This record gives sequence, structure tokens and C-alpha cells, in this order.
Amino acid sequence: MTDKNNNERITLAHGHGGLASHHLIRDIFASAFSSPELDPLDDAANIDLPTGEISFSTDSFVIQPIFFPGGDIGKLAIAGTVNDVAAMGAKPLFISVGFIIEEGFLFSDLEKIVGSMADECRHAGVRIATGDTKVVPKGAVDKIFINTTGIGIRRKGIKLSGALARPGQSVILTGPAGVHGAAIIVARNELNIRGKVYSDCCSLNDLVEQLLDKLGQAITVMRDPTRGGVATALNEISRASKVGIEIVETEIPIGPETMAVSEILGFDPLYLANEGALLIILDDDAVDKALRICHSHPRCMEARKIGEIRDDLGGKVVLKAATGGRRIVDMLAGEMLPRIC
Amino acid sequence: MTDKNNNERITLAHGHGGLASHHLIRDIFASAFSSPELDPLDDAANIDLPTGEISFSTDSFVIQPIFFPGGDIGKLAIAGTVNDVAAMGAKPLFISVGFIIEEGFLFSDLEKIVGSMADECRHAGVRIATGDTKVVPKGAVDKIFINTTGIGIRRKGIKLSGALARPGQSVILTGPAGVHGAAIIVARNELNIRGKVYSDCCSLNDLVEQLLDKLGQAITVMRDPTRGGVATALNEISRASKVGIEIVETEIPIGPETMAVSEILGFDPLYLANEGALLIILDDDAVDKALRICHSHPRCMEARKIGEIRDDLGGKVVLKAATGGRRIVDMLAGEMLPRIC
Repeated sequence: MTDKNNNERITLAHGHGGLASHHLIRDIFASAFSSPELDPLDDAANIDLPTGEISFSTDSFVIQPIFFPGGDIGKLAIAGTVNDVAAMGAKPLFISVGFIIEEGFLFSDLEKIVGSMADECRHAGVRIATGDTKVVPKGAVDKIFINTTGIGIRRKGIKLSGALARPGQSVILTGPAGVHGAAIIVARNELNIRGKVYSDCCSLNDLVEQLLDKLGQAITVMRDPTRGGVATALNEISRASKVGIEIVETEIPIGPETMAVSEILGFDPLYLANEGALLIILDDDAVDKALRICHSHPRCMEARKIGEIRDDLGGKVVLKAATGGRRIVDMLAGEMLPRIC
Repeated sequence: MTDKNNNERITLAHGHGGLASHHLIRDIFASAFSSPELDPLDDAANIDLPTGEISFSTDSFVIQPIFFPGGDIGKLAIAGTVNDVAAMGAKPLFISVGFIIEEGFLFSDLEKIVGSMADECRHAGVRIATGDTKVVPKGAVDKIFINTTGIGIRRKGIKLSGALARPGQSVILTGPAGVHGAAIIVARNELNIRGKVYSDCCSLNDLVEQLLDKLGQAITVMRDPTRGGVATALNEISRASKVGIEIVETEIPIGPETMAVSEILGFDPLYLANEGALLIILDDDAVDKALRICHSHPRCMEARKIGEIRDDLGGKVVLKAATGGRRIVDMLAGEMLPRIC
């Protein structure tokens, strides 16, 4: 059913729970995602976790285009939820997947996306435990949306939260700011810039595990700066922790392609999304060790300390500009980029 | 922001992670769904379960129309996932919610839907632990889709699965077949039939708890016959358990309105969805007790034994017709009703 014809398309019958649904589930999903939890194909999966102390996170992915340099909606859906669970200090173990597919979607594209998801699950060491598929008539959804919901087990003795930043701590960013957003902008607009821009889309639970193993309670906040970018994530943290944050413009890693895209289209790279970087807030004396761990990770070689937590900035996020001045980096007030993740 | 103007609409800015997103989350979601798990509003929620032996289920809801007699997409999204978790013999405790909303959607409609979700959560005794909201440009989704993913803790000594039906056991249906499907058809087509058709949409975890308390291991399968109805759910069970199932037409409760709708439009009510009924497969000597428990539940007063598990039907689901003949009730082969849940 799946490899006879490259033009075969999803029909409404694939979403009706009948024979076609069963073939879709068997041929595409069950074979790619096979696991002891998924294989019984009951309406819910039974999972045996070593503890009931878990982290739980959900995300819907509506990105456009669904294939982009550095990934696709499937890889993003796994990495995004893995990173949200990991950033709470938990070890992600199981993921549920909900597909909403437009009638007429190509089987071959679905197979590619499902293949990316399976690859990223293997990479991150997580398993898909349960799923759901809906097919809606043409025009009721744009191509394909994916929800992933993740469960991880929490580490004993570790408590991370956006509300736990303390004055005197440092802020690390593990990779160049805004590179996922820049890649999507280039892909959408077919911009002709020097050098290709690849999304940083990847799971970072292995990095989180190393950091917490080595540095434990010195780290109090981890967050992946997705929608709204570094600026928005730092604003969330400053509000939740009731602290000021100063970041230093010359210390923030930003790739030349991201700069070029931002200048051409008038975006501020601090508001562009990452999908494979973390903001880490930690005690100042742990910074060197944390940076060494980051630099030994293939996706975090450009990690840098970009600022610090302060008690004197009126609870604002402030950028110390390259020119020496200071400006407030506020929450994004208006629109920016829809469907970035 | 939410009650000044009945015509206020969701904009793309509500989905961008900036200021408008934070207002939406604070004013609509955090106030309706407030819980110790949700309130920190981190990217993942920390949950303390009494055991790591859980059931985990996901469902995306794309129903059209979003408001229908007997419920709306919000009530359905909670009840549907509660029932999927409960039908595995687990006690549902926590739910994640992912909204995908079309630009221009009315705030007042979102508030109604969120209110229904909060009500159904209270009714079912579950809490919303974490969530996500995406807003997509007009035309990229039809109004609103909701994903809910649920976690429940399993009961010791209970193992339910579609693969555990045994010859000699009986089949109970706890309410009139196909009534959710019939209600949606009437709502869509504005059919003028005698008597209003209300969806049976409701959480049945309280019923499941009573049944398992009283009957324990006598029950081996529970399933809510949603998409594809009773016929599809029984076919799934017969395949997974490698057994035949005989159902008796005159014993299957079907409301007169459902019959009327089916006759007018040429549907078979056995393939129409329920959203507040269960198929229960249990030892024959437990049937009377199970029916007494069902009949004392306000939503299951028409529960009936509708058939039995057999080893002589070649693994098929067979209907003993009112006229005395027998016919095979197969999986649905073609299309039926898109966007029924």
C-alpha cells in the first residue's frame, strides 16, 4: 500500500477508524515506531516508569514549510518535546504523537516525516508509546500538524524552574541565537543569501544529562528559547523569578547568515527561535565547567556566557549594546512570525 | 481583555509567545484550569504520581461543528481522553491540552470551550497539568483543533486489553449505539426530525471504577466505540483477541432518533460513534451484577448485554438479525463521516 506509487495520497477513509485506518497504522506508524508500549495498539498504552515523579509537556507543531534545511516537522516535533521535558531536569522516556493530516497529503511525505521522527527518537533515546491520527477534508488544515506530548522521570535532588533565577547567577546560551527562525525565513522567502542557513533543530537531552550529572544544583533554570527567541525566554524568566537580567550584545553568538537575514527583513535575531539551544542559568562559579561540557557537545560548540542575573534593573531584561549604551529588551508586543514551530 | 467586547478575536500575536500570548494564557487558560501542576507555567509540568505504573493516551479533536447538542469540542476533548485512559483500567488523573486556533476565532467562543473543559475536568476528577497554544493564519485550520493527552495510574491486579476477549464471555453495551454520530449528523444537516438528538458525550471513569471495584478480573476488555462505532470497536477486539463475536440485533439499544437519522441518510447505526458509552467484555456470570451497576449510573440506564464471544465464527463479528438471518459486520471499508470527533 505504501511503496507502489509515489503519488499515493491520504484519503478521508484513512482517518475513519475502518480498514484504511488500520492499514495506515500498520504500514506506516506501527512499523516505524514499534515498541513494547505501542505494539498492542490499544486506545491507551501501559507504561511502567521506575518512579511516579515525572515531568509532562505538550506541544503542537504547525510549522510551514514542513521540510526545511536542517529538519522537518517530524524531527522538530520529537526534539521540541524532548527539550521541554529535559529542560525541567527530567529524563525524557516516552512520547505520544497526534497527527492531523489534510486529505490529499502525499503518502511519501508522511513516510519521510515518520522516518525523521523515528530517527530522532532513537537519537534521543525515547520511545513513542501511543498515537492518534485524524484526516480532515481538504482546506480544513494546511497539510499536516503534529502534537507530541512527553513524559520524563525527574532526577532526585534537582529542581529547575523559570522562577528560580537568583541575582549573581550567570546566563549561558548554548548555540547561535535565532538560527531556526532564520532558516525558516530563508526557506519561506527563497532569499538568496551567501551561505545556507540550517535550523539548529535537535534533541539536547544528552547535554542536559551531562550538565546535571556534573553540576547538579548549581543550575537553577534551563529553557529552550523557541517562539519569541532568547528575548522572550529571558523575559519569562525575569518575570517568574522577579529579577533583572543583563545580557551583553558582544557576547551573544549570532551567525553571519542570521544577521544577514535579520538585516534584510528587519527582524531582531534576539526574537528569532532556536530549536536546538538552551538558556542555562547557573551559579557563576560553575560557568567554566558548564562551558567545557557544552563545547564537547557537537551541537553546542559556540556556547557562551551572555549575561547575568541582577537585582538592580527593576525586573527588566537589559541589553548592554556594542556601542556601550543600554536598552530594555521587552516582551514582543505585536506580531512576528507565525508558524515558526 | 476578555470581557469588554463580545466580538474580540484571536490574532496571530496571541500565538507568538510574546505579550499577547501571556495575556491569553493568564486571562483564559490559567484562570480556568488553575492547578498546582499548571500554575508555575514552565515548559513542562512536574507531577507526583503515587506509582510509575501508568496508562497514557492521546487524541486530537477536529469535530465540526464545534458546538453541538449535548456538548462542544472542549467537553469532548476531556471526556474522550478520560474514557480512553479509564477503558484500560486506569484512574485518569492528569491531562495536557494543545490548542491550535485559527486567526480571527472569537474570544467568547474560546472562553465557552475552555469553560466546558474545566467543568468536565471537575466532573471527571482530573486536572490539566500543562498546555500549549498555537495560532495559525486564517485558512490554515478550520476554527479550532484540540489535542488532549492523558495520564492515569493503573490498578493493581487489573489487566484490560482488546486482546483479552475469550470465548464464552459476554458483551455489554452501556448506552444506545451511535447517538453521538447521529447528533453530529443532525447538527450539520439541520435535519428536521421528531425529537432532538443529543450527543452522549461524557466521562465514564466513575462507572469504570465501580465496575472494577465490584467485578475485578471478570472484566477483560473495555473500549469506547468512538470513530467507526460499535461495529469497528468489536472488529478491533475480534482481530486482537482472535475470536468471533456474535451480537443480537434485537438486543442492541438504538434510540428512535438515531434510527430515523440513519434511515433518512442511509447510515448503519452500528458504525456511528458513541462518546459516552462503553463496550465491556466480561465473564458471563458477572453480567447481571455489571448491568445493575450500569443501570444505577445516570448515563448508562439503557445498558444491555448485546452478544457473546465465540470460537466458531472464523474470527468474524456476526449479527443475528431481527429476521433470524446472520450477516457479517465487517470493518468499514470506505468513507463515512469525517470530523466526527
